[in-house]
Amino acid sequence: MTELFEGQGCWLGVDLGGTKILAAVVDADGNIVSQAKQRTMADMGPDSVIERIVDTARKAIEPHETCAEVLVAAGVGAPAPVDVAIGTVYGAPNLAGWGEIDLGPRLEEALGIPTFVDNDVNLGTLGEFERGAGQGTRHMVGVFVGTGVGGGVIVDGRLFRGFRDSAGEVGHMIVLPNGPLCGCGRRGCLEALASRTAMERDIRAGIDAGRGANVAQLIASSKRQRLTSGVIKKAVDAGDELTLEVIDRAQFYLGILVANIVNFFDPQMVVFGGGVVEALGDRFLEPIRQTARANFKQERDADQIRIVPAILGDYAAVHGAAILASQQLAQSAAS
Amino acid sequence: MTELFEGQGCWLGVDLGGTKILAAVVDADGNIVSQAKQRTMADMGPDSVIERIVDTARKAIEPHETCAEVLVAAGVGAPAPVDVAIGTVYGAPNLAGWGEIDLGPRLEEALGIPTFVDNDVNLGTLGEFERGAGQGTRHMVGVFVGTGVGGGVIVDGRLFRGFRDSAGEVGHMIVLPNGPLCGCGRRGCLEALASRTAMERDIRAGIDAGRGANVAQLIASSKRQRLTSGVIKKAVDAGDELTLEVIDRAQFYLGILVANIVNFFDPQMVVFGGGVVEALGDRFLEPIRQTARANFKQERDADQIRIVPAILGDYAAVHGAAILASQQLAQSAAS
Repeated sequence: MTELFEGQGCWLGVDLGGTKILAAVVDADGNIVSQAKQRTMADMGPDSVIERIVDTARKAIEPHETCAEVLVAAGVGAPAPVDVAIGTVYGAPNLAGWGEIDLGPRLEEALGIPTFVDNDVNLGTLGEFERGAGQGTRHMVGVFVGTGVGGGVIVDGRLFRGFRDSAGEVGHMIVLPNGPLCGCGRRGCLEALASRTAMERDIRAGIDAGRGANVAQLIASSKRQRLTSGVIKKAVDAGDELTLEVIDRAQFYLGILVANIVNFFDPQMVVFGGGVVEALGDRFLEPIRQTARANFKQERDADQIRIVPAILGDYAAVHGAAILASQQLAQSAAS
Repeated sequence: MTELFEGQGCWLGVDLGGTKILAAVVDADGNIVSQAKQRTMADMGPDSVIERIVDTARKAIEPHETCAEVLVAAGVGAPAPVDVAIGTVYGAPNLAGWGEIDLGPRLEEALGIPTFVDNDVNLGTLGEFERGAGQGTRHMVGVFVGTGVGGGVIVDGRLFRGFRDSAGEVGHMIVLPNGPLCGCGRRGCLEALASRTAMERDIRAGIDAGRGANVAQLIASSKRQRLTSGVIKKAVDAGDELTLEVIDRAQFYLGILVANIVNFFDPQMVVFGGGVVEALGDRFLEPIRQTARANFKQERDADQIRIVPAILGDYAAVHGAAILASQQLAQSAAS
């Protein structure tokens, strides 16, 4: 709906994650023409991570010299709260030693092109809206289920950031007052009930109580000895009852979340992304849809509200980052 | 922020309630220059109610002949879901026999001026935003606590209606899964925990169990034999323990609601209106603020988010209705 990437040139999109950095060059038509990926090595501290971002970006740019010559601007998704106007990142929980850091200005200096920063989940939502599952909608919400649960909000075809650039913290909407303890220190947040971390907590408790032999075996034989999305899929495929029970509970609270979002915000679409959704697909979404729909206040045209899986996978945030760069540059040119 | 009521002329604002109809003529500066009020007499059915709306409107217009000559358009708030583009009202629960009714077109024909309809709580929110507590904000949410709990959402200085004109149903956000039964047939909606109806249910249960002698006496000696906002105020003033306990519980869930709204939508202000808030004032709001603030995910600048009482009282919706008329007319002129 917006005229993105007007004219010539390419855009750099970077997704800074807790474990890896993904950088991609996106052409004027929105195609990824080259990319590079490196480990974040977060334990080396912020200065090192920023160097690795620049290095990953250069590796993504190199193969496309023609593009690099006309590289217009860069966008970066960070796993943290961000002040978008100045590019400051506030204390990323998955990046050791990150307090308040002027990530945007520092990368802009190193890369030599205008550089804009936003929250990674906001950019994943923007990517899915412009190039993924959300195309053609006007009001959309993205929900990403992984080690945590994050979200983003699209209003009238634009990323909605709210008063403090903090909109979309769906993982910390409270869906069960006085419920399980959340990583944020509060109780009953959605994230404490429906993230992969919450599922793992409950599955391990079940295993300790002598249940879930199947999933216990799968965790033990997995490379990281963790309940990864891959392990969840195998356990579900094997019909492990403990796993099915734990997922059922997560789905229930995700359904309540969607109902609450719809009753408050009335979007046209809720897009679900993240590892668990990618691994299980529609099997994961259908029970969420059912709980959600059973709790919509306004039933008129309720069947027109779509609850769908994301389609860009790992590339949602780099697409979103490139789009951010384009939109922010247009906005600063206009003002 | 919008240029309302440009040029000359007056605007008619009507608030159609379950028990009364309030109509007001608003001048180009946003002042109410005359008004009229009548009982709705909802049990007479839709045709009669529509006649009474027209009659109330005429009574409001009459004293201001100069204004009436240049009455530009009318806005009407209805206690029901509304399709704003066509002015259709869908089944108002407090108006007997109202199915799907083309209220806008019917009033337009009777009044002889362009007439626009929206949900009454949306218009109360719009009124508070443009002329009340929310002036000067950009993103705001209105929450009205009465026999039910309703809400409205302002995004970027405009009423946000969502995909189906259904945004702002805060009373049916689920704050306690499998909680008490709500009037909507579902369980654990905010309305089932924090409306005056919910408070009355809990207070009557307490009285049945031999508690709350004070509030029992106040209810018995009240005109309507109900837990009105006035009765609540007297019981709180008298230090009735049962009442304080029940209100405390309602405040807790309203605090959770505000936290969920802030974590999802990050508004600058949440405005609380309705009878209970008007009766108790800041005593009612302070515990809500505390629970809310304790549950904000993003603490940065959290103290800048304001949770305040509405200031227009019964006039919020008629102001909002006049503003609706002005905005919709400008919009239809522009398209």
